[in-house]
Amino acid sequence: MRKKTIKDVAKEANVSIATVSRILNQTSKGYSEKTKKHVLETMEKMGYSPNAVARSLISRQTRTIGVLFPEISGMVSSEMLHGIEAVANTFGHSVIVCNTNSDQAKTLKYLRILEEKQVEGVIFTSKVLTKEYEKMVRQMNVPFVVLASESEVEDVPHVKVDDELASYEATKFLIEHGHKHIGMLSGNGDDPIAGKPRIDGFKRALKEAKLPCRDTQIAQNNGFYFENGHLAFSKLMASHPETTAVFASSDELAMSAVSAALEYGKRVPDDLSIIGYDNTKLAKMAVPKLTVVSQELESLGRKAAEMLYREIHTGERSPSLTAQHNIVKRDSVKPLSS
Amino acid sequence: MRKKTIKDVAKEANVSIATVSRILNQTSKGYSEKTKKHVLETMEKMGYSPNAVARSLISRQTRTIGVLFPEISGMVSSEMLHGIEAVANTFGHSVIVCNTNSDQAKTLKYLRILEEKQVEGVIFTSKVLTKEYEKMVRQMNVPFVVLASESEVEDVPHVKVDDELASYEATKFLIEHGHKHIGMLSGNGDDPIAGKPRIDGFKRALKEAKLPCRDTQIAQNNGFYFENGHLAFSKLMASHPETTAVFASSDELAMSAVSAALEYGKRVPDDLSIIGYDNTKLAKMAVPKLTVVSQELESLGRKAAEMLYREIHTGERSPSLTAQHNIVKRDSVKPLSS
Repeated sequence: MRKKTIKDVAKEANVSIATVSRILNQTSKGYSEKTKKHVLETMEKMGYSPNAVARSLISRQTRTIGVLFPEISGMVSSEMLHGIEAVANTFGHSVIVCNTNSDQAKTLKYLRILEEKQVEGVIFTSKVLTKEYEKMVRQMNVPFVVLASESEVEDVPHVKVDDELASYEATKFLIEHGHKHIGMLSGNGDDPIAGKPRIDGFKRALKEAKLPCRDTQIAQNNGFYFENGHLAFSKLMASHPETTAVFASSDELAMSAVSAALEYGKRVPDDLSIIGYDNTKLAKMAVPKLTVVSQELESLGRKAAEMLYREIHTGERSPSLTAQHNIVKRDSVKPLSS
Repeated sequence: MRKKTIKDVAKEANVSIATVSRILNQTSKGYSEKTKKHVLETMEKMGYSPNAVARSLISRQTRTIGVLFPEISGMVSSEMLHGIEAVANTFGHSVIVCNTNSDQAKTLKYLRILEEKQVEGVIFTSKVLTKEYEKMVRQMNVPFVVLASESEVEDVPHVKVDDELASYEATKFLIEHGHKHIGMLSGNGDDPIAGKPRIDGFKRALKEAKLPCRDTQIAQNNGFYFENGHLAFSKLMASHPETTAVFASSDELAMSAVSAALEYGKRVPDDLSIIGYDNTKLAKMAVPKLTVVSQELESLGRKAAEMLYREIHTGERSPSLTAQHNIVKRDSVKPLSS
């Protein structure tokens, strides 16, 4: 069963396609009331209803938003997507997902695709919306929200936790449990969002407590994935075998540390305490279950979508939002026995 | 900067909107060559280019596909999505994700949205495409592929592994390691795809080896998630404390078993061997790393998308495909010491 088009309607009603198009577009000129009535009756008889694409063209509402992820197959992305999709769905909207592989060219390509598709808004996740994207953002002229990162483009709000503070508190939590030799598995110090601020928070807590704080205590990685953590953990243990506690700046890095610790004959938490960062489902699945700083990613996703829809519906831009974080105590941190 | 519309073009060129629309739609009637030239030149001068929505209306190509997931925030879904998105991207297509919560009404609602949006194809994942959806599938009249499940709707191909055989081989693997008392953490026996066939494969292996095979050895769950596994594991241990090996029919259930085993004072694999099913990233993150039957989910996603695009581009329907599975040996299974 081929779908009926305005061509079929035109043929059946014995008018030109342009006339049908004008009627659908509610142009007030170019056809008589009699023709309009005849065409509408023909449509009804044929069971033709203008499709969403046609209606989008008329109303300029595509009921679609786009979401860009640097990596789509991680827990962090999928939990944020879950929150975004839930909100979009309540508005009868669809979500186009774009996997940018953290690549600028691919990101631009995707923004162009989203522009072409006339999405009504864009959520840009986990990467800084840099000046490189400004021209495109202006050109698209639809609401943008940056999720779990920040924006260099003026007037684009973000929603994220305070990474420095969250990391400070995670480290402090270890200190309060009596640990004095604390290491960190971090992202890249050049990463202005999830890298440097988390390192800064870690250092601030150590300095405040007058504990040793050398650069070698911070094992940097190029990513926050499980695969990244192993080597970093080995480096940390090689330079600081005295370490009794580790702040891992993602859940995956924490899982990696748990796994690597065993290879060093260290049991978690008896010989080594580990605190993670994110609170994805992984944290509950780990053995031992991970104590973490929680970002509540699904809720972050919901908030970003709510900010976006507020602007879509009212034209009012939401201010940037610093979301709450909190420490979720499970089984991977233990007081240091003296 | 507001986007330019055909209204602006019409105003600038001093012609009616209908005329611009007719020219864009390449209708051959209703305007002179002179007018056409004038309008096209005006468009060029204004930097107006017909957008994707308008072009979609003309070409009936939206360059978009829809993917339905029963649950979007799990590893299984996100790895399949990764594969699908990668293929769609090579064709310059976008992917709309739909989270159905395994709910029939929500699934139908989403199919209607995808119909309205005139997606060029649909991938239906992890759930049976039942007869209830047949009317909608016929009405949409675009290619469908069922991924990691099967179709009751004629002419809709699927791609999945042979669940019965994969489960048979997983169980056989445990038997070959000397285990005689084997339990299973399964999905629901009423689930015709990931439930019953995996139970059947488990039973076949035990019967063939003339090992005990009672229904109480199979602890059923309503889902395949981590949360589901704990209670099932407890039931299994209560009825069969002699169990030395467990076949868990998802990675999350296997993680759950590892975690629950510890509470029973059983170390994996020394006191209890566990084999999982899926080979998501979780399997590598677990301690010990999980031996699993691998479904290669990203690759399954790629295959489904390739089948879909073959039909989109050539009109030729792909036959259903049984994808390869294989056993990935890691650290959670150990030969039984006599």
